[in-house]
Amino acid sequence: MHFPGSHIIGIDAFIREDIDRIFHTADRMRPYAHRERVTKVLDGAILGNMFFEPSTRTRISFGCAFNLLGGEVRETTGFESSAIAKGESLYDTARVLSGYSDVIVMRHPQSGSVAEFAAASRVPVINGGDGANEHPSQALLDLYTIRNELQSRGRDGIDGLRIAMIGDLRYGRTVHSLSRLLCLYRNIHVVLVSPQELRLPESLEVALREAGHQVTVTDKLEESIRKVDIVYSTRIQEERFASREEADLYRGKFRLNQAVYTQYCEPNTVIMHPLPRDSRAEANELDNDLNENPNLAIFRQADNGVLVRMALFALILDVADQVDRHARDVNWYTERRF
Amino acid sequence: MHFPGSHIIGIDAFIREDIDRIFHTADRMRPYAHRERVTKVLDGAILGNMFFEPSTRTRISFGCAFNLLGGEVRETTGFESSAIAKGESLYDTARVLSGYSDVIVMRHPQSGSVAEFAAASRVPVINGGDGANEHPSQALLDLYTIRNELQSRGRDGIDGLRIAMIGDLRYGRTVHSLSRLLCLYRNIHVVLVSPQELRLPESLEVALREAGHQVTVTDKLEESIRKVDIVYSTRIQEERFASREEADLYRGKFRLNQAVYTQYCEPNTVIMHPLPRDSRAEANELDNDLNENPNLAIFRQADNGVLVRMALFALILDVADQVDRHARDVNWYTERRF
Amino acid sequence: MHFPGSHIIGIDAFIREDIDRIFHTADRMRPYAHRERVTKVLDGAILGNMFFEPSTRTRISFGCAFNLLGGEVRETTGFESSAIAKGESLYDTARVLSGYSDVIVMRHPQSGSVAEFAAASRVPVINGGDGANEHPSQALLDLYTIRNELQSRGRDGIDGLRIAMIGDLRYGRTVHSLSRLLCLYRNIHVVLVSPQELRLPESLEVALREAGHQVTVTDKLEESIRKVDIVYSTRIQEERFASREEADLYRGKFRLNQAVYTQYCEPNTVIMHPLPRDSRAEANELDNDLNENPNLAIFRQADNGVLVRMALFALILDVADQVDRHARDVNWYTERRF
Repeated sequence: MHFPGSHIIGIDAFIREDIDRIFHTADRMRPYAHRERVTKVLDGAILGNMFFEPSTRTRISFGCAFNLLGGEVRETTGFESSAIAKGESLYDTARVLSGYSDVIVMRHPQSGSVAEFAAASRVPVINGGDGANEHPSQALLDLYTIRNELQSRGRDGIDGLRIAMIGDLRYGRTVHSLSRLLCLYRNIHVVLVSPQELRLPESLEVALREAGHQVTVTDKLEESIRKVDIVYSTRIQEERFASREEADLYRGKFRLNQAVYTQYCEPNTVIMHPLPRDSRAEANELDNDLNENPNLAIFRQADNGVLVRMALFALILDVADQVDRHARDVNWYTERRF
Repeated sequence: MHFPGSHIIGIDAFIREDIDRIFHTADRMRPYAHRERVTKVLDGAILGNMFFEPSTRTRISFGCAFNLLGGEVRETTGFESSAIAKGESLYDTARVLSGYSDVIVMRHPQSGSVAEFAAASRVPVINGGDGANEHPSQALLDLYTIRNELQSRGRDGIDGLRIAMIGDLRYGRTVHSLSRLLCLYRNIHVVLVSPQELRLPESLEVALREAGHQVTVTDKLEESIRKVDIVYSTRIQEERFASREEADLYRGKFRLNQAVYTQYCEPNTVIMHPLPRDSRAEANELDNDLNENPNLAIFRQADNGVLVRMALFALILDVADQVDRHARDVNWYTERRF
Repeated sequence: MHFPGSHIIGIDAFIREDIDRIFHTADRMRPYAHRERVTKVLDGAILGNMFFEPSTRTRISFGCAFNLLGGEVRETTGFESSAIAKGESLYDTARVLSGYSDVIVMRHPQSGSVAEFAAASRVPVINGGDGANEHPSQALLDLYTIRNELQSRGRDGIDGLRIAMIGDLRYGRTVHSLSRLLCLYRNIHVVLVSPQELRLPESLEVALREAGHQVTVTDKLEESIRKVDIVYSTRIQEERFASREEADLYRGKFRLNQAVYTQYCEPNTVIMHPLPRDSRAEANELDNDLNENPNLAIFRQADNGVLVRMALFALILDVADQVDRHARDVNWYTERRF
């Protein structure tokens, strides 16, 4: 991938060096995201933040990332207000909207829609999620978090990683993308923990094995989290099951709380989750009693999303090397706990 | 209250010196709000304007106040598009969203929600209204307006104020907050005008008396507005009554128009109202024939909201003393009638 | 019309010299809209982008135009979240909102509402569409496109233009406004192509004739497009007809595709359309096979909308002559295909 002017549609377009470059650039965004420094490198640039499907966190995260580089954001937040609803083609929408901004982030409920849109766009397009298909910035922030968490525990690089992915592995878009990204690395041990009915699609399991990785399939939580670096938990989606009772059977088994963590996990095992987490008592997915556990990395994932998105913008718009030249210190109160 | 980094959740946290400081800071914001000068003191800062309940004027007022200080605004405008609807806890929402901005304004339909959110937030939070509970910036702009209106009539300070509050005093959030703020001052005469069924809650009446204020309770409009500095009118909310006919009984009595004003009020009595005002003929609350009366202060209230919100941002982010250093004259057309 | 501080409500307020000045100013905005240069002439100014009716393209176009001049945008995107719904008068809304920004763009479903709003506003107001009534920036961008397309074909000025307007001429707001604008010019030949039931309102036909123009009325597509410079196609709105079958009768006749174009049009005849275009196969209005035809100007129309709206802001806020003084070169990737 050649970044300046490139679209970011799916993760299959990346090679390992691209990921390295994105992560290296994200690292350099930290002083800006953490409000130690201000940069105006994109002063005058406009992001078209086109969310044709509701989203708060992803939309705000992309918007803030662009603001943090000094740019402006124009956006749309729902499908109903769109000309697409009146029969306008994605081609027309793309031709029109791409005249309004320097880069576009697009979320759309329809699988493949963002690629079709990007083909007609006159400016670079980042996929902000196209239905059940791709959400590349989420996969990148997950992998970036893994890399950073390992690093802060004295481990360099992703090769040799041991990771348990837990929950609905069949429909969860994030575990699919993360699995594909992991194929770029070496010597990974992937423990797939799900009910039989919700196993990872076979094609992905095959891809992981063909990449030379060790793959363990199980439906038991406790044994799977004993010897891993990362526990990546996802939601059991009740609506996939024949009955609530059936769903509850699985839910009990995959519930991670502090007691389970202490009993089974190695010290400093990292806990991740693609937010939002369902915190209602009956959800049983990742207990609130883990909130004070320093290895709970779920909010660091969200923070890292800003860094990764800043990096994507900086690379696509070819300003990564100029960021520090347009910078100064922050002059307002900022005692943040990152 | 120590401002830099503080949350602004409710008005009980304020002492009189805090109010003085907010109002003094608001005064200094006038050249910027009135477009005589531009300041970029918050250039590079981001406000998360999180409205989980629809609002046009309060949302735009906060957003403009932040823009006027040179900052950027990212926002959300409704509940349905939020992860909260998927069972995310306020704790998680706060942990995530507070990684995106330097300060957050939050409106939420649930009483107490903003305090809960603030407890988990890593950046200062301003309550933009949490259900029937608190809306501190509204109470502050009301009191700031009272102080300014008195000042422009040659009276210095709020002590000794005579004010009539009229309408639905039972449910009106703004009169509750204003009453509490008045307890910080001395020697106030408060005339409470409402139907018996819609009297001010007893705890507030007691608080006013315990602050040493004179409290008069009545259900007659004319006598109550004879000897006051401020007439603070609110809406009679039809839906609170058993029948429309019953509501209409009260409505006729509290209708303020130019003829009533001329007959009963002292010259220069100030008319206030927490907007929006229902201007439909049958609403009968504050007649449109008062629009040319220079003592109608309702739009000055709205203008003052921008000043007060700028002051809150400046104090919380600790830039009040830097505002003028980052300033220059306005270079575009601006013949505003403030 | 004297621009600084003026409202832009309807096109009847314009004389020919106004149009010339808008177009001349729009021309000078091109380097900024095309991301060759950045200007900060409106740095610190705020646009209130008040859309009380959903719209993506017009709203974003106005917002981007203001951002491209260096200003900030606060906006609202729907009616339901507005105080207007609670009985607030347009007078009150205008008095309040005009305290928040330096200029307002307003869209509202009710005919005449924007003029009423503007009368009470303390800052200049641009009509972004008031129901079936007016949408002046759309008419201006249409005429600006006509002028530019003729110019790029070696023709100077709009006098002597030959134009066919096709489709629903009775209800189409854009053809009404464009017809009125054309009355400011000389020696135009207007071919009006519509079903008998959807003819241009008589008052407009009379106005065109009284301006000295030649007007031809027909319901046959092929003969009407033989000798014109511009084919301005609009949508046949099925819902106006007694039955779908009846609508289909007309639709077949007005379908423009590459084959029809090649057979009947002179070389380089310009194709225009007020987007969005319905691209579903059954819509039959302007075929996708025209997308590669360089004379299809529909996306240049959208691009020109940004230029025209920048010009309106610059003239109203009296900064047209300062734009270049606050400018610098773009420093990010921008390989745009305008």
